[in-house]
Amino acid sequence: MARFRMTLEYDGRGFVGWQRQDNGLGVQEVVENAVHAFAGEDAVVQAAGRTDAGVHALGQVAHVDLIKDWPEDTVRDALNFHMKEYAVSVLTAKAVDEDFHARFSAVSRRYLYRILNRRPPPTLDGGMVWWVPAALDVPAMAEAARVLIGHHDFTSFRATHCQAKSPVKTLDSLDITQVGQEIHFDVGARSFLHHQVRNMVGSLRWVGEGRWTAKDLQAALDARDRAAGGPTAPPDGLYLTHVGYPEA
Amino acid sequence: MARFRMTLEYDGRGFVGWQRQDNGLGVQEVVENAVHAFAGEDAVVQAAGRTDAGVHALGQVAHVDLIKDWPEDTVRDALNFHMKEYAVSVLTAKAVDEDFHARFSAVSRRYLYRILNRRPPPTLDGGMVWWVPAALDVPAMAEAARVLIGHHDFTSFRATHCQAKSPVKTLDSLDITQVGQEIHFDVGARSFLHHQVRNMVGSLRWVGEGRWTAKDLQAALDARDRAAGGPTAPPDGLYLTHVGYPEA
Repeated sequence: MARFRMTLEYDGRGFVGWQRQDNGLGVQEVVENAVHAFAGEDAVVQAAGRTDAGVHALGQVAHVDLIKDWPEDTVRDALNFHMKEYAVSVLTAKAVDEDFHARFSAVSRRYLYRILNRRPPPTLDGGMVWWVPAALDVPAMAEAARVLIGHHDFTSFRATHCQAKSPVKTLDSLDITQVGQEIHFDVGARSFLHHQVRNMVGSLRWVGEGRWTAKDLQAALDARDRAAGGPTAPPDGLYLTHVGYPEA
Repeated sequence: MARFRMTLEYDGRGFVGWQRQDNGLGVQEVVENAVHAFAGEDAVVQAAGRTDAGVHALGQVAHVDLIKDWPEDTVRDALNFHMKEYAVSVLTAKAVDEDFHARFSAVSRRYLYRILNRRPPPTLDGGMVWWVPAALDVPAMAEAARVLIGHHDFTSFRATHCQAKSPVKTLDSLDITQVGQEIHFDVGARSFLHHQVRNMVGSLRWVGEGRWTAKDLQAALDARDRAAGGPTAPPDGLYLTHVGYPEA
């Protein structure tokens, strides 16, 4: 048996999310079907994180076990060939030890959130950004974001159906920068609660609009109550960009 | 009567090109229908250049005459409202003198061509780049591109159905740069022949593959014969980025 670690890129539009589900096509199903078409095996593909419907990935990591010790480039190219009808690509495939697990070995995750902050609606980037027409105060958002950095109970920014054992997480970074007409949120942590990034971005939008101050964001965090947090940003602007492992 | 100059952004996928045509939806028709819905007028919208089917615009310029002297922001926002079903946006609308003509007043046009140069296929950028899996030699392409700069008979890079009076044009710039996994061609001239950018990019790809040298490109230019030029690059990677006028 050979275990392969894959880096995956996909367009979240048109998928019900990473996970195989009954109500539509998951990215996992597309990759598993390609594995079957290529190697004739019904293998489970395990990802580092289950992205939601409409959420994109530039650097999702997944692993799969195959019976045969295929060349790495063959795995990458064959899977891409069998996925060519779908907006899913294997960027790299590497043979790894059997103690590597895409989800349980991961020590960090990074997400990018893109807001298109201009009055005209998006065209080429439709479905790939959150369109916010009113001008946002980026320095105010960047200042307020410092409230969220560190070790906290993030219940106020956690989906009510989140299945994590604890709402306590350590947010390592939340950098907000203006990039042309866009505002980019670069967010890093060992792991995240369900909807945590989208709920933080939705709350920071309120800061950018002047509806909330940094103190209001602090009060929301301290409340440990989802009802005290801001709204959930749409999936369109969210990208899983990187998953880190101890060796890299 | 009031003349408005508009800067337009659009996703070329799903359109038969700028021009109103019988065989499908043109961007011009979308804008003209929005003008009708907003102002109740059957006005013709004149663009600086007629982009082909599948070609995108980040900075197309067009003008329209309206009976009423509307506020500029009203024109922009009302047209965007009436085009919200389509991937077309008015970025700016400015009142201009009646001697301004989007096409005839233009003194420069700039295009961007994007090649995605990596082995895995595109996902989020499908339809927005030309996917070239084999590694291209960017310095060799940049060196060869110098052959094309300046005042030349560009018959070898001109579509056979091109309606321009003369095949002689002055190419002001053709800058080729590696941007991550992409290769960007920034091309500027007063005006271009039909398919000129796509035919130049298709020929430069041959240089990047080592199939042609700069001398071969020179010979192709000198031949003044379309059959001597390289293949036409697909519309997917082409963007009209800027149109220049004397005052700006």
